[in-house]
Amino acid sequence: MSGGTAMSGNDLDFEGWTCPLPLRDTPTVVLGHGGGGAMSADLVEHLFLPAFGSAARAELGDAAVLPRPGGRLALSTDTFVVKPMFFPGGNIGDLAVNGTVNDLAMAGAHPLYLSTAFVLAEGTPMTDVGRVATALGKAAERAGVQLVTGDTKVVDHDSGDGVYINTTGVGVVPDGVDIRPDRARPGDVVLLSGPIGLHGIAVMSVRDGIDFGTRVESDTASLHELVAEMIATGADIHVLRDPTRGGVSATINELARASGVGIELIDRAIPVPGEVRDACGLLGLDPLQVANEGKLLAIVPADAADAVVAAMRRHRLGAQACVIGHCTVEHPQVVTLRTGLGATRVLDAPIGEQLPRIC
Amino acid sequence: MSGGTAMSGNDLDFEGWTCPLPLRDTPTVVLGHGGGGAMSADLVEHLFLPAFGSAARAELGDAAVLPRPGGRLALSTDTFVVKPMFFPGGNIGDLAVNGTVNDLAMAGAHPLYLSTAFVLAEGTPMTDVGRVATALGKAAERAGVQLVTGDTKVVDHDSGDGVYINTTGVGVVPDGVDIRPDRARPGDVVLLSGPIGLHGIAVMSVRDGIDFGTRVESDTASLHELVAEMIATGADIHVLRDPTRGGVSATINELARASGVGIELIDRAIPVPGEVRDACGLLGLDPLQVANEGKLLAIVPADAADAVVAAMRRHRLGAQACVIGHCTVEHPQVVTLRTGLGATRVLDAPIGEQLPRIC
Repeated sequence: MSGGTAMSGNDLDFEGWTCPLPLRDTPTVVLGHGGGGAMSADLVEHLFLPAFGSAARAELGDAAVLPRPGGRLALSTDTFVVKPMFFPGGNIGDLAVNGTVNDLAMAGAHPLYLSTAFVLAEGTPMTDVGRVATALGKAAERAGVQLVTGDTKVVDHDSGDGVYINTTGVGVVPDGVDIRPDRARPGDVVLLSGPIGLHGIAVMSVRDGIDFGTRVESDTASLHELVAEMIATGADIHVLRDPTRGGVSATINELARASGVGIELIDRAIPVPGEVRDACGLLGLDPLQVANEGKLLAIVPADAADAVVAAMRRHRLGAQACVIGHCTVEHPQVVTLRTGLGATRVLDAPIGEQLPRIC
Repeated sequence: MSGGTAMSGNDLDFEGWTCPLPLRDTPTVVLGHGGGGAMSADLVEHLFLPAFGSAARAELGDAAVLPRPGGRLALSTDTFVVKPMFFPGGNIGDLAVNGTVNDLAMAGAHPLYLSTAFVLAEGTPMTDVGRVATALGKAAERAGVQLVTGDTKVVDHDSGDGVYINTTGVGVVPDGVDIRPDRARPGDVVLLSGPIGLHGIAVMSVRDGIDFGTRVESDTASLHELVAEMIATGADIHVLRDPTRGGVSATINELARASGVGIELIDRAIPVPGEVRDACGLLGLDPLQVANEGKLLAIVPADAADAVVAAMRRHRLGAQACVIGHCTVEHPQVVTLRTGLGATRVLDAPIGEQLPRIC
């Protein structure tokens, strides 16, 4: 559908996007779309609800009332400000679902509900908003989470940057599950669910005209089903964490500090795709500091490691799961990296902003 | 305390704000504070946690795990982008708590937990961030809600506008309570908790050099305790809604449409403070379209109205509660206003952005 003939919500096609009435008269976002009046209502009714699709509860009111949950609650929030909004393999809408679903999953929670809060810059094309909202709806559907309540604000053209999205997720933690960043113990084994760096490099590849020659696609994904398989082994999983901002380096250092253990990683055991290694070489970056949004680190008792790795490998998102290190009583709170030459160096956490924001 | 002598979190005083080590070396926000590395951790440890005070759960991790709640869940989200951040009677930190707590309260929920997600513009003074976070923590403490999980992103100086805050709230709805925007019935009575317009006018008074000569202070407040008193009367409260963006006009029109009833308001019955009326006259605004954050509209069965009004008046935040209209079978989905002269006119919802953003 390419013309301006959409006459109802049923005609919307956000992928080859035609703006529906009555939004067609304003092909870009204007301040009035955030004013709480009729234009705000139009945006929800004619753009967000059709774009979100079956993942949305139809009311999307100021507050959602939901059934009494059957366990401890998990709550997680994240605001996504990724630049650019669109990148190979996804867009900010996918990330806004996967990022928050994954934070819940890293607490061992089964995700149930998401709130979505958009901040739109005036002048953003409605088609971009539609594409992002559609991606968000589809990602929520794939993840099996409901979009239950939302908010939209519009800011001056100079004040915003296209689209920011906050998602806050509610999940339920099964009885007996106790996964926390401070539960790593000496002797525990460190697992990684697969190759690192693809998401961060994919986002960087479309920033600022950087062209690596090869096309790297983001591997952004929701990991809660993989986590459920790991939990189903019956292993006492101590720690789960997704290495997002700051990459594996930042995350593993956080865990070492939180648990008060030393962690020794084996450089050669950490899978880094060739195109990620090449791009990092070109840009002078450390692949261990590149962000991910579709990978997880797990710390498990040594005697459970084989069973957990096997369970992960049976799942599509853990097919290349592997052991990358272990926890030790030596050098508490410090992470070391054993290099291919047999030397060992300290692996520091990155200090500030090493990479373009990718989540 | 005015010097740069703060040596630990215990020395912080955000009101006369001295920046703690190690943030003192960066008196403004820089991109690295959002990078997920050591600077991000410093910001949480040395600014947000001390500023939030006793309202914060100490961990503030990626996901919070919380006890199994004792009822249906209510979930609400709101992003606050108010300009300017500081205004007479409050700042964006107070609003970020009260706005979301009130959205929960309007579903009849008892608020329990808030997530807080900050988007900071690079270059924002740390003292401003500290003042906002302190106000947020104090408002949460007053409201009795816990800050359980958070997120911080930093955007380029040109992309953001000081501080945006998303709060998402989780509450519990008591058994038997069923408060929804579509439950207004013909014959029901419309109640208002007090004078309107103070918050919106207070924010406008410090925008763009507007000076009204008189000082108007925001009446922003969390209304859940007032709501609890109303519910405690045993009345079957049909609808609650806080007239925020778009004011009473937008809100009451939404309710008329949602419930399919006509609503007739009596102009003279709606309390408008003199200074609000004066400022609106000066600016050519309709007080009914000015935003509030500390007032509520209620729609209740006629035979319960007296008891509910009496209960409201016993509470500090409802001392001036009054009847302002009723629902009718005539003109369904349309709101009319009976003027002082005895004429009746249609009260339309505002279309877009009538006022500066005030929430």
